[in-house]
Amino acid sequence: MLAVHLERGAVTLREVPKPERPPGHALIRTLLAGICNTDLELQRGYYNFSGTPGHEFVGEVVDADSTDLLGKRVVGEINLACNRCDYCRRGLQRHCPNRTVLGIVRHPGAFQEYFTLPEHNLHVLPGNLPNDSAVFIEPLAAACEILDQISIPAGQRVAVLGDGKLGLLISQTLHASGAHVTQYGRHPQKLLIAERAGVETAPSQAPLPTAEFDYVIEATGSREGLSSAVRMVKPRGTIILKSTVHGEVAIDTAPVVVNELTLIGSRCGRFEPALELLRLRTLRVDNLIAARYPLADAVQAFEHAAQKGVLKVLLESS
Amino acid sequence: MLAVHLERGAVTLREVPKPERPPGHALIRTLLAGICNTDLELQRGYYNFSGTPGHEFVGEVVDADSTDLLGKRVVGEINLACNRCDYCRRGLQRHCPNRTVLGIVRHPGAFQEYFTLPEHNLHVLPGNLPNDSAVFIEPLAAACEILDQISIPAGQRVAVLGDGKLGLLISQTLHASGAHVTQYGRHPQKLLIAERAGVETAPSQAPLPTAEFDYVIEATGSREGLSSAVRMVKPRGTIILKSTVHGEVAIDTAPVVVNELTLIGSRCGRFEPALELLRLRTLRVDNLIAARYPLADAVQAFEHAAQKGVLKVLLESS
Repeated sequence: MLAVHLERGAVTLREVPKPERPPGHALIRTLLAGICNTDLELQRGYYNFSGTPGHEFVGEVVDADSTDLLGKRVVGEINLACNRCDYCRRGLQRHCPNRTVLGIVRHPGAFQEYFTLPEHNLHVLPGNLPNDSAVFIEPLAAACEILDQISIPAGQRVAVLGDGKLGLLISQTLHASGAHVTQYGRHPQKLLIAERAGVETAPSQAPLPTAEFDYVIEATGSREGLSSAVRMVKPRGTIILKSTVHGEVAIDTAPVVVNELTLIGSRCGRFEPALELLRLRTLRVDNLIAARYPLADAVQAFEHAAQKGVLKVLLESS
Repeated sequence: MLAVHLERGAVTLREVPKPERPPGHALIRTLLAGICNTDLELQRGYYNFSGTPGHEFVGEVVDADSTDLLGKRVVGEINLACNRCDYCRRGLQRHCPNRTVLGIVRHPGAFQEYFTLPEHNLHVLPGNLPNDSAVFIEPLAAACEILDQISIPAGQRVAVLGDGKLGLLISQTLHASGAHVTQYGRHPQKLLIAERAGVETAPSQAPLPTAEFDYVIEATGSREGLSSAVRMVKPRGTIILKSTVHGEVAIDTAPVVVNELTLIGSRCGRFEPALELLRLRTLRVDNLIAARYPLADAVQAFEHAAQKGVLKVLLESS
C-alpha cells in the first residue's frame, strides 16, 4: 500500500506492507486527512520525526475486535495512552506520560492507505456529517479545549490573535459559546470567514489596543504573539497560549506579575464537544479547505500547505 | 524632618517640611520600615523613580479625621485606589488603574519621619504584635496572595524556588496552610530558617527534578527561574510567578502549551491573612532581620541591603 514518509525534511512516497492490527486496535482505511501545522513542523525537525505523519483523518474501519465497528466511518483521538497511570485515571489521557501519538510520537499516522488505532480512541460519525467537515474534528477539539480549561462568561470580551486555521476555529467556537470575540489577523480574506460567522475582526497591522480584553487567545504561531497578548489583556485577565513556537520566546514578565495575569497553555481536546458543534451545524468548517490532493501527490500537497497564508490542504485516499 | 531621597541611583538624606495631611488621610510617624527588593530596583531605575521610597512600615497615627486612630500603632495597604472604578468595586484596589502606590508610584513613602496614607488603608495592630514582626506584614501579604489566587489541596507537593526573603515567607506560609513544600535555594543558612519551620529544603545548585511538582512558586528573582519552574512542574501543573525581573526573560513556550501549564503572576495581597498568621504566631518572621539602622544612616542601610544574600534590613525612626 501507499504511505507518505517524512524524514529530515523530505516528504517521499513509499510502497509498504499493510500494517498488522494489534489486539484492541482497529485497522482503518484512510478516506480523508488534513495537513496540520504540526505536520509542517515535523518536517522542520520537531520531535526528530521519522515515519508516516497524519493525525487529522476520517477513515473507515475495515477490521476490528468489535464487529459493530466494521464498515463504520470514524474519526479518532490521537493520543494512545496507557490507561493505567494517574493522568489516565483522571481522564487526562492526553497527558499520559507513557503515550504515543498518532503520526507524531512513535505511532504511524494517517497519511497512508491503512493504519491502526485503539478501538476506544474512535468516534463513529453520524451519517449526516460529511467527510469535509469531520476531517476538522481534531483541530476543532483543540479549539474546544479552551472551554474545557476555563469558563468564559457570556458577553465577555475575548481577543483571538491570529487568523490561521486554528485561530479561525477558535474565534468561531468562542463566538458560538456566547463570548464577544474580536479576531486580529493580517489576511482580510481569512478574517472574512470569521466575519461571516458573526465574529468581529480587526487588522493586526494597526496598533493593537492596550489592557482591553478579559481574555486573549494567542494563536498567531509567531514569537511576537505572546507579548502582544500581555499588552492587550486587562489586569487579572487570562491569556490562552495555543501557538507552539520553536525555540525560545522573549517576554517581559514584569507586567505578568504586576497585573497578576494568568497564562494557560492549551493543546488538544476531547472530541465530543467538537463533534457536537459539527453535528448541530453550529459552525461551518468546510470553508477552511484550500485544496485537496490524492495521497499519491502528497509531495505537492505538503508544498502547497507550507505556503504562507494557505488554509487547510487535504489528502484523499481512494 | 528627615527624609530619604532616591534619584538616579543615589540615596541621600534631606531635611524637608512635615507633609500636609489631606482630608481622609492619616499623618503617620514612622517607627520601623523595611528595605525591600523593590526599593533596590527603584534605585536601579525601575519606574523612573524619584522621591522618598518605603512601603513596608509600622507607624503611629499622629493626626487623622477619625479620632479613634490617634496614637494607634498601624500598618497600611500600599495602593491608594480611586475606589470608584470597576477594579475597586470588585475589591481589587491593588489593580485600580488610577492608583498611586506608597513609596513606589507618585506617593511619598515611609523612609522619612512622617508620611500620609488614606485612613481606610490602615490596619491597627494588636498590642501583642511586636514591631519586628509587624514590619513584615506587607511582604507576608504578598506570600498570602498566592492562597487568595489559587487553592492548594492539603498535602499537595509544592516547590518554592529561591531562598530570599519572599521565598522564605512563601515556603513557610504554604507549609502552614498544609501543603507539602520543598524549598530550593543556594544559601544553606537561609534554608535553615525554612527547615526550622518544618519546610523540606534542597540545594538549587544540584540538578533540579523534572515534572515532579503540582505547583511551583518562582521567587528566585532571576532570569533563569521561570525555565526551571517550567521543567519542574507536572503536566497540567501551576506555576506562580513572584519574581519581577528587569527586561525580557527567554522561555521555551512549547512545554507550556504541550503540558497545558498554568502560569499565574502574583503581586501584593490583602493584609488581613498576613496579620492573622502573625497574630496567631503561626509563623515567625523576626528571624529574617539581618540588620537595623537609624533613618539617618539610610545610605549605609541601602548599601547593606544591596549585598548579595542579605535578608531584611530595617530603618528605625526615633
